[in-house]
Amino acid sequence: MKKSNQHKKIVSFGEVLMRLSPAENRKLPQASSMDFYFGGTEMNVAASLSYFGEKTQQVTNVSNDLVGDAAITAMRKFGIDVSAVNKVDYPLGLYFLEVGSGMRASKIAYNRLHGSFANITPDSVNWDNILDDAGLLHWTGISPAISEGAYKTLKIGLEKARAKGLTITADPAYRSNLWKYGKDGFEVLKELVNLSTIFIGGVNEINEILKTDFDFSKDGFIEASKALIKECPSIEKVFDKVRTGVSASWQKVYGRAWIGDEYIETKELEITDVIDRIGTGDAYAAGLIYGLIHFEDQQALNFANAACALKHTILGDANLVSPEEVLEVIDGSTGGRIKR
Amino acid sequence: MKKSNQHKKIVSFGEVLMRLSPAENRKLPQASSMDFYFGGTEMNVAASLSYFGEKTQQVTNVSNDLVGDAAITAMRKFGIDVSAVNKVDYPLGLYFLEVGSGMRASKIAYNRLHGSFANITPDSVNWDNILDDAGLLHWTGISPAISEGAYKTLKIGLEKARAKGLTITADPAYRSNLWKYGKDGFEVLKELVNLSTIFIGGVNEINEILKTDFDFSKDGFIEASKALIKECPSIEKVFDKVRTGVSASWQKVYGRAWIGDEYIETKELEITDVIDRIGTGDAYAAGLIYGLIHFEDQQALNFANAACALKHTILGDANLVSPEEVLEVIDGSTGGRIKR
Amino acid sequence: MKKSNQHKKIVSFGEVLMRLSPAENRKLPQASSMDFYFGGTEMNVAASLSYFGEKTQQVTNVSNDLVGDAAITAMRKFGIDVSAVNKVDYPLGLYFLEVGSGMRASKIAYNRLHGSFANITPDSVNWDNILDDAGLLHWTGISPAISEGAYKTLKIGLEKARAKGLTITADPAYRSNLWKYGKDGFEVLKELVNLSTIFIGGVNEINEILKTDFDFSKDGFIEASKALIKECPSIEKVFDKVRTGVSASWQKVYGRAWIGDEYIETKELEITDVIDRIGTGDAYAAGLIYGLIHFEDQQALNFANAACALKHTILGDANLVSPEEVLEVIDGSTGGRIKR
Amino acid sequence: MKKSNQHKKIVSFGEVLMRLSPAENRKLPQASSMDFYFGGTEMNVAASLSYFGEKTQQVTNVSNDLVGDAAITAMRKFGIDVSAVNKVDYPLGLYFLEVGSGMRASKIAYNRLHGSFANITPDSVNWDNILDDAGLLHWTGISPAISEGAYKTLKIGLEKARAKGLTITADPAYRSNLWKYGKDGFEVLKELVNLSTIFIGGVNEINEILKTDFDFSKDGFIEASKALIKECPSIEKVFDKVRTGVSASWQKVYGRAWIGDEYIETKELEITDVIDRIGTGDAYAAGLIYGLIHFEDQQALNFANAACALKHTILGDANLVSPEEVLEVIDGSTGGRIKR
Amino acid sequence: MKKSNQHKKIVSFGEVLMRLSPAENRKLPQASSMDFYFGGTEMNVAASLSYFGEKTQQVTNVSNDLVGDAAITAMRKFGIDVSAVNKVDYPLGLYFLEVGSGMRASKIAYNRLHGSFANITPDSVNWDNILDDAGLLHWTGISPAISEGAYKTLKIGLEKARAKGLTITADPAYRSNLWKYGKDGFEVLKELVNLSTIFIGGVNEINEILKTDFDFSKDGFIEASKALIKECPSIEKVFDKVRTGVSASWQKVYGRAWIGDEYIETKELEITDVIDRIGTGDAYAAGLIYGLIHFEDQQALNFANAACALKHTILGDANLVSPEEVLEVIDGSTGGRIKR
Amino acid sequence: MKKSNQHKKIVSFGEVLMRLSPAENRKLPQASSMDFYFGGTEMNVAASLSYFGEKTQQVTNVSNDLVGDAAITAMRKFGIDVSAVNKVDYPLGLYFLEVGSGMRASKIAYNRLHGSFANITPDSVNWDNILDDAGLLHWTGISPAISEGAYKTLKIGLEKARAKGLTITADPAYRSNLWKYGKDGFEVLKELVNLSTIFIGGVNEINEILKTDFDFSKDGFIEASKALIKECPSIEKVFDKVRTGVSASWQKVYGRAWIGDEYIETKELEITDVIDRIGTGDAYAAGLIYGLIHFEDQQALNFANAACALKHTILGDANLVSPEEVLEVIDGSTGGRIKR
Repeated sequence: MKKSNQHKKIVSFGEVLMRLSPAENRKLPQASSMDFYFGGTEMNVAASLSYFGEKTQQVTNVSNDLVGDAAITAMRKFGIDVSAVNKVDYPLGLYFLEVGSGMRASKIAYNRLHGSFANITPDSVNWDNILDDAGLLHWTGISPAISEGAYKTLKIGLEKARAKGLTITADPAYRSNLWKYGKDGFEVLKELVNLSTIFIGGVNEINEILKTDFDFSKDGFIEASKALIKECPSIEKVFDKVRTGVSASWQKVYGRAWIGDEYIETKELEITDVIDRIGTGDAYAAGLIYGLIHFEDQQALNFANAACALKHTILGDANLVSPEEVLEVIDGSTGGRIKR
Repeated sequence: MKKSNQHKKIVSFGEVLMRLSPAENRKLPQASSMDFYFGGTEMNVAASLSYFGEKTQQVTNVSNDLVGDAAITAMRKFGIDVSAVNKVDYPLGLYFLEVGSGMRASKIAYNRLHGSFANITPDSVNWDNILDDAGLLHWTGISPAISEGAYKTLKIGLEKARAKGLTITADPAYRSNLWKYGKDGFEVLKELVNLSTIFIGGVNEINEILKTDFDFSKDGFIEASKALIKECPSIEKVFDKVRTGVSASWQKVYGRAWIGDEYIETKELEITDVIDRIGTGDAYAAGLIYGLIHFEDQQALNFANAACALKHTILGDANLVSPEEVLEVIDGSTGGRIKR
Repeated sequence: MKKSNQHKKIVSFGEVLMRLSPAENRKLPQASSMDFYFGGTEMNVAASLSYFGEKTQQVTNVSNDLVGDAAITAMRKFGIDVSAVNKVDYPLGLYFLEVGSGMRASKIAYNRLHGSFANITPDSVNWDNILDDAGLLHWTGISPAISEGAYKTLKIGLEKARAKGLTITADPAYRSNLWKYGKDGFEVLKELVNLSTIFIGGVNEINEILKTDFDFSKDGFIEASKALIKECPSIEKVFDKVRTGVSASWQKVYGRAWIGDEYIETKELEITDVIDRIGTGDAYAAGLIYGLIHFEDQQALNFANAACALKHTILGDANLVSPEEVLEVIDGSTGGRIKR
Repeated sequence: MKKSNQHKKIVSFGEVLMRLSPAENRKLPQASSMDFYFGGTEMNVAASLSYFGEKTQQVTNVSNDLVGDAAITAMRKFGIDVSAVNKVDYPLGLYFLEVGSGMRASKIAYNRLHGSFANITPDSVNWDNILDDAGLLHWTGISPAISEGAYKTLKIGLEKARAKGLTITADPAYRSNLWKYGKDGFEVLKELVNLSTIFIGGVNEINEILKTDFDFSKDGFIEASKALIKECPSIEKVFDKVRTGVSASWQKVYGRAWIGDEYIETKELEITDVIDRIGTGDAYAAGLIYGLIHFEDQQALNFANAACALKHTILGDANLVSPEEVLEVIDGSTGGRIKR
Repeated sequence: MKKSNQHKKIVSFGEVLMRLSPAENRKLPQASSMDFYFGGTEMNVAASLSYFGEKTQQVTNVSNDLVGDAAITAMRKFGIDVSAVNKVDYPLGLYFLEVGSGMRASKIAYNRLHGSFANITPDSVNWDNILDDAGLLHWTGISPAISEGAYKTLKIGLEKARAKGLTITADPAYRSNLWKYGKDGFEVLKELVNLSTIFIGGVNEINEILKTDFDFSKDGFIEASKALIKECPSIEKVFDKVRTGVSASWQKVYGRAWIGDEYIETKELEITDVIDRIGTGDAYAAGLIYGLIHFEDQQALNFANAACALKHTILGDANLVSPEEVLEVIDGSTGGRIKR
Repeated sequence: MKKSNQHKKIVSFGEVLMRLSPAENRKLPQASSMDFYFGGTEMNVAASLSYFGEKTQQVTNVSNDLVGDAAITAMRKFGIDVSAVNKVDYPLGLYFLEVGSGMRASKIAYNRLHGSFANITPDSVNWDNILDDAGLLHWTGISPAISEGAYKTLKIGLEKARAKGLTITADPAYRSNLWKYGKDGFEVLKELVNLSTIFIGGVNEINEILKTDFDFSKDGFIEASKALIKECPSIEKVFDKVRTGVSASWQKVYGRAWIGDEYIETKELEITDVIDRIGTGDAYAAGLIYGLIHFEDQQALNFANAACALKHTILGDANLVSPEEVLEVIDGSTGGRIKR
């Protein structure tokens, strides 16, 4: 990351969702109440970075009602700057999650396509002001998939950020059940990746964007990364997270990266008793961004992977850990002793 | 009510909503979980009638996901026939409720205008089959306010029901924050009332439909009722509920009616410690329908008012009481002794 | 009360029940969990007296399983001596309570007639040992109504207690849904009252036992008391509690007594926001016993009534208040200030 | 299974119990509330089959009180036909469960031997009506162990079902702590197995009924099955479930069967984080019945074993999974990914 | 209030406490969990003002551990500026609250005298920076009662605020169970009042400071106020709140004031179903400060009293209401209707 | 253990703390309520021994407020004699625990150094009375680390116990974050160990006291034990617990001992799904004490280790298991079957 970008505000753009989930792994018809959390892939990144001590800001719409107020309160609680959050007369997006266990998969039902973020428009976001003191802009493939307004708003932000020399981190996951507004998702993602500098994704995401067919081996990843950088030359580095799930309750993760001229990877971390899997990818992205600001690439990747592993032990969408806790895991402290 | 309609199925048409509410009168930012209930003004009527021992059926759409499945389970639990419930690829409507207390008003935020019921279409409802063994069809002013599809579907149902000689109960409340699809709400309501036989509403509702200005006195109510029946001659009787709230926690209710040729009213019932105010109007409607089936008009009105009062003591949308419990309240048993 | 009985152990004989109740006034089909408490009319008296600082002992059977162990733990927690509690191979009695509110009555369903206490036998209770250092024995009309074994065990205890000169407090309420084992309840109660010294009850209970027809006025109460003492000359005094319920949530109580040669009464106390009505009669009995030990009759009656009133504000079966808290209510402190 | 039985109603006969259990693995003295569920081995089979889409009916007694009403509501919620459920004046059976963890065993205390089902009588069940449109009758060894009335009622049902040519599935587990009414349990079970067509059980159950001593090896199982079929020639096939528990929280299961002329078995499934072990055997039985209706024997056994494994991940007695979820586990999807 | 102070930051100085309270009015031995809130009389004022839309800042110490972090998060959630909060190696102060009901008084047990705020020192607070853009400084009689360090720190702040011309609001309640460090509380309070401009208190507080004996009548209040202003001439106005409690669950409040040359008062507001009484005095203070900024004195007093009344309906220490909600109560909307 | 000490009361001396912990592994800012338990290392030993059937007594101070009352209730519930518990005007010590999971460590924040136990004084404890019928006195290294008063009170108790010939069990863990009152912790511990007979600790604790450098191997342990006994000749035996944590949720433990002339050890037990790790060391100590009373040394060590392993499966501080449950684990029953 450019030195000049390192001590500046981090901006994330994306939907804030309410997540509703029966407690204790219950299925919905068994429950009479649901726990709720405010999250969303980009806000989760902001929340985690805020807990790491970074200055963060979320650009989004919320509903102009008691739910939107609660969403703003939640962001404020995490320490995220909410001055670029608009309140509009559409309901806040939300989703229901039945948390799986063991061999039972988790299930999600969304209610977001006519919500407050889906109705965002370019003219409601003052990108010039927002980006003025920013060093990094983070986006994911979810936002342009929600609506044309979200896509256009993001595109303008990326172009302005690029013009100002910001680091731009892209997490361009493709979600097939979105993209209802008529655009080809893969083409849009490629266009936006072409405005970014750091690619957070792996063989899957590259194959989707480039319409290629690389395999998932180390070599496949390296070749895919090289192909991506060739096609989208603004991209400098590719950071991937590899997950191998024993079950919903038992997961393993490691990180690997092509840093322009070299392949690096981390050791694998094992989580035998998953508390919450939502937001683990966002924890990786936030860990990576923090790592790129404070460390060289190998340690940044270690930090991303350890942050991701720790998130599996924390309820809710956001990774409520300090840099010290992440560093201890990197240093091998995974025995879970008691800190008095 | 016509004798021939008395022992037949009761059909209600309308949206099934999930209600989400922080426990213990909390405001949303104070809560980390919410209780939920499935309800909706017309389904509440069906649920209450089902608890009274009547055969009921709900005509509606639910979402084709885990939430819609839970909504169906909830109806089945109440004993409502769900064979006319369609599953469609739109999210189930829902609302958030912050429960007030004392002088603090309750607050509601809706998320329903692009949901599964808003997307109902006339061709998805087989009214002929549904109404075949039915004696009564119940509707409210909420349904035609949601979407043009809902309006049209309801209108066809009312026309077919009228042709078959069903009793049609109308609860035509006007909600100003709905009616977004271009129709004049007052005109639509008048059109639909003209297809109905029992009017559940008072001076307010009549003034809205007739664009009149009757006052809320007993005489005003009688004159308004006469005017309504003159303009909408299918209406035979008008049943009203009068509420005087001391506070959100302390309410008084009584019923009054114009039964075509006579004014009747009930004594006032007082609820000093309101548990849940949602669905009390629906409890009145259900009590009235049960009363019209089983009693003459004065006792039917007593039954409606006592059912309404009892609902204030019960959590959730539906009035989970037996006819015996209602009759005991009518008979003056309001001291809350313990039944062993 | 005889001076010699004043500083000795208080023994209570009766069933320990588990009470199961959905939280928040829910009806059972609305709940997925239930709060539970261990109680029982005589154990509630012992628990309250233990909180007042008296030495107490419960004579009973519990189940020889995890539920019986928990019942013993509950008594130990209250400070009740459990050395005369037997464990037998029958399930602990229990009941379900749907808590009413306002005009909605509470509902109870029992499961006790084949339980551990119903199977108590005279040979399992060593009354001589138990009564050795006791000054008072308390019983109610529930115990002899459960089973013949319970009746016989109690009768032997009362005879031995009488022989030893103990004060014997009788709370001979008649429950029509018990008494399934073939005895005439009214006759049995009369026989047992004839072995007692303090009668806790009023016109209702006297009419039942004497098969008389006194009315509920002050004069009716006085005449009934005189008649009782004439028929059951071991009875020295009659203490009554008069309740007038506005609703399940709003109650008024006052005490009145015939103390052999004089009528006394207390002022009425009003509870506008009932938390729990179960055990309020037991709180009265315990307050009375404590009062008779420590005060003269008027203050004893005041203490009984104030203790009863306070119990309405406390969850569970037992009256967890100190003598100081009761005395403050007697002294007029009912405004509910904060004690820092 | 006979083709003619495949699309008909499935009838199960047995007790409906309330299960009461402290949350979070608490021991009873640590808890102040308990979660509850309605279940019972045969009702669990009906509930699971109902979730699989089959038409089911439960034959049983419940209590004529608020608990019995809640039990009926629970069955209705699962979609089970409750028209053959009688309400009687005995309390509903129930049990308390302290859920174990790791090396700590779960503990159960029952209260059922004088309850509503124990008081069932043959004349209260109209088997002819019930079996008229049925294709299968399911029973277990629990029912005849409860009371002579339950035994006789079941026997008549089996004889009538046999006469009508129904498939009869027997799960004849012997519970030594029941059988208090004077019959020899092993003889009764043998008599009833002789009226059945599918045996769900293994070497243990066969040894008990035949008073033999086969070992638990594959060969032992085959020989035992052959011996059973020889002694009870109505039995066509024997389906067994083999469990090897690492701890209360970590279990492994596989299925094996003797299908008259061939031995088949499934691969072993491993559950590393058990949520609830109650009802896993019933999930196997329900899975088997569904499998026998829809697949050939090997896939039926696969389905039974996968359904059983999935049940370990679901709270409560009933296996709330769809056929699709079971088939995905059979197809190897045990990694617990998120389904959006 | 001086115009120049009206649009500036409001600073409050005082301890942040964790409050721990069993839910549902339970007594501590009945509970296995406690709800918790972060509050403290001065922070409650800041929180309420922040909800009203004012810019606020808290000056305090918190513990340098997970509890202090949570306290900071709570302030951030309310929107309070936490940049003047120091973390020190002493535990955060806390208190336990058993919530009373009806005639049962609430009970509080404190643990604060060796906590993080008690160890505050003048050199740890940069008053010059903090007060630079401030218009008002709020203090109460609790802070100087905790420790000499707190007293000295506050005194310096008041002197500097006075020098800068800030409005200084004093809520000088005397708590007899504090003041353990050797100073005479009444003298200290008088000294600090002499540095303030607005006195929030009544006859009681004035009598304590002036060692006078005014009575509680309107005239007594006016005379007391005049005497106070004579003795402490910096004080411009005196605002009092008069509470008459029917019970812990039923309260009445009205406000009265001597505004230098005139007596004013509000109508009385009645709260029949108190949810939470803690922080109602702070709600009055915050309402008054907001009122003094935005309205003339009579409306300011109305606003203070209505805000105080509304707080009784809200759980927790802070008054989570908007100015609109307060104004509606002033305008007579106390019937608790539903806002859709 | 001396035969004469085997059937006597066990006395433990130490602080009773309230533990406060968010449920479900939540971090404090995510929670709105906390579960609480009363414990403390020495009281945990007493509670466990009480559940094993031993007579126990706790010597301590609690606060003279509602929290102290609840602490006494908690001890009474466990069956611990509370007659030597003093109530003093200092708050009860407490701590906050964020429960870790997997690789996330648990975090603790204490509030105890100015509490009721820290203010204990020798003159408030009547050791002669307390020890009169006692056979064993248990202490840990926490008590002398809290305050000089606690140290002196303990020392006198040990001297008197030694004079009376009691068995004295020492668990001399050194906690570096205590010992704030000026004494050298290692020297004090050595002094107190010199008054004890059984050393519960390992190489770590011995190295700290003797300022040696033994390694953790079997030989290191034997040499360390010999050195300890040489330096502190009152010590007869050394019992150690070896823990190897896979993660906070997955632990392994085994026991080893030097019993004066021989080395013994147990097999390792594995807990794959830790429910609660607090108090596992105390469970070991209690198991050891019970074992030394009832068995020879090898079985005593087995019992200690199995008790320790079982505690990992139980919420709260105390090990609520029976001797039978421990013996079953020793006998290899770790598969977690259901006990009906």
